[in-house]
Amino acid sequence: MEKTLIFGHKNPDTDTITSAIVYAYLKNEIGSHAEPVRLGEINEETKFVLNYFQAEVPRLVNKVATEADSVILVDHNERQQSADDIEDVRIAEVIDHHRISNFETSEPLFFRAEPVGCTATILLKLFKEHHVEIPKNIAGLMLSAIISDSLLFKSPTCTEEDIAAAEELAQIANVDAQQYGLDMLKAGADISGKTVSQLISLDSKVFDMGDHRVEIAQVNAIDPTEVLSLKSDIEEMLDLAIVEKNLSLFVLAVTDILNNDSTIIVRGAHASIVEKAYNLSLDNNIALLKGVVSRKKQIVPILTDTFKNQ
Amino acid sequence: MEKTLIFGHKNPDTDTITSAIVYAYLKNEIGSHAEPVRLGEINEETKFVLNYFQAEVPRLVNKVATEADSVILVDHNERQQSADDIEDVRIAEVIDHHRISNFETSEPLFFRAEPVGCTATILLKLFKEHHVEIPKNIAGLMLSAIISDSLLFKSPTCTEEDIAAAEELAQIANVDAQQYGLDMLKAGADISGKTVSQLISLDSKVFDMGDHRVEIAQVNAIDPTEVLSLKSDIEEMLDLAIVEKNLSLFVLAVTDILNNDSTIIVRGAHASIVEKAYNLSLDNNIALLKGVVSRKKQIVPILTDTFKNQ
Ligand SMILES: [Mn+2]
Ligand SMILES: [Mn+2]
Repeated sequence: MEKTLIFGHKNPDTDTITSAIVYAYLKNEIGSHAEPVRLGEINEETKFVLNYFQAEVPRLVNKVATEADSVILVDHNERQQSADDIEDVRIAEVIDHHRISNFETSEPLFFRAEPVGCTATILLKLFKEHHVEIPKNIAGLMLSAIISDSLLFKSPTCTEEDIAAAEELAQIANVDAQQYGLDMLKAGADISGKTVSQLISLDSKVFDMGDHRVEIAQVNAIDPTEVLSLKSDIEEMLDLAIVEKNLSLFVLAVTDILNNDSTIIVRGAHASIVEKAYNLSLDNNIALLKGVVSRKKQIVPILTDTFKNQ
Repeated sequence: MEKTLIFGHKNPDTDTITSAIVYAYLKNEIGSHAEPVRLGEINEETKFVLNYFQAEVPRLVNKVATEADSVILVDHNERQQSADDIEDVRIAEVIDHHRISNFETSEPLFFRAEPVGCTATILLKLFKEHHVEIPKNIAGLMLSAIISDSLLFKSPTCTEEDIAAAEELAQIANVDAQQYGLDMLKAGADISGKTVSQLISLDSKVFDMGDHRVEIAQVNAIDPTEVLSLKSDIEEMLDLAIVEKNLSLFVLAVTDILNNDSTIIVRGAHASIVEKAYNLSLDNNIALLKGVVSRKKQIVPILTDTFKNQ
């Protein structure tokens, strides 16, 4: 049987890695031959999760067309966030919860996107639609994805459906979501031993906004001042990335996961777009965005619209 | 409650019109406020269907942003096939069975596409997922859409799922699918009283293929020679459309619905793309494509790829 590769976005986060593993499990249960793979290094939070629920780290790949005729994308659809040679392979399916952009096929496909907080919430529906039972550890992986994407249910991206899904999955996985979740987020916020370059690329995505290419990175922190003390080194690395990738703007959001605010460091020729978008003045390239924790809901749309209307 | 407009593509076909009506019924049953509308004149086949199952003709609109904050697209996603002001309105949902192209949102949405033969087949699943009963006439509309899109189950786009859905719906609607289906297709193939200009725009769609804009129209016929006798007038109209819309290519497929072949009339500066795609020589702008009945599966992908690789 032909093998299908399943993978999430570059700079993988917990939802991307676990969704590849979980959906491959479901596909194999219903008679396909699917292998989960990843497009980058896994972060500390995901390591904690895979270790806790005894899941193997998916194989690292850079190109996919040489080893599969068709692929399944989870947790992303935008081409620049996907495999480098995504143009050369047939995309058979997409399971996602992001905006749709820079995505195009020449043939019909299975595309399932819902405006929920996490890919795992959609995967739970697919298990039910296919009448496949969810093993304990698979449920644990899915619960972890929801906790990660929703910052323990505090992000505005978190919907009633995500919360209900998490409750159901916590029961199957037999863990206390609050306690396990905090341990997991803390493991992810541990930046000891990370270089500044690693720090800003941990959870970073590139977006096309009109004619502009914008990178938005996010770092979760228990104590944001720990990250902000590296400000001048960070700025240097952002400037480097701006030149290398021809970016109009680079925003690094340092998200306080206990207080649910983000401090942003902004660089690039179009830094003023951020000031206009949030109606604020950057102070030495920095601003505090009260209550902002979601890149997808509270940063990407407003910057996209501000670029469009400038 | 805020109203959502639901509509299919321009030059509406039976699946587009009935899917708007059917999905609006479902949305209203589950507590939304939705109105089906249409972006163009309905064809003879659809008239037959709406009359048979006593459904109202949806209201005609050209622009949508002035009367709704959000819309739902059925049976299409490509911008150039949608409302003229689709850029100015939030797309809340898409239910479709076509390739994804020229589609982009700034926020996450509900996007449900499956590689089946008809939008109605997906809608049947949604009724089940929401546990809503399907009334007799609504089932009749959905059955009609499947028969129309699959040319009475003979198109290569028709899947096992479409056939199973049609059987289920025929039972609810209490009609004989074969007999009703043939009557319906014949009503649609009646070109008496149509001008050549009406004929070529009955079921016509515009596609972007690389840097080229391509229009592909389809006319169903019981007796193709009846249409082909109008060849020189048709060519004149195609040439007019090519200039007006700046097309690289216009293909009119005259589909013999009893023998399941299509005769194509080809015009435009890139007519040779068609010769290359199907490895044939056009004879006086005409060629017979044996076994070709599906624009979506047997024309659009091969032309897209040939334009890409030229
Ligand atoms: Mn996610
Ligand atoms: Mn259709």
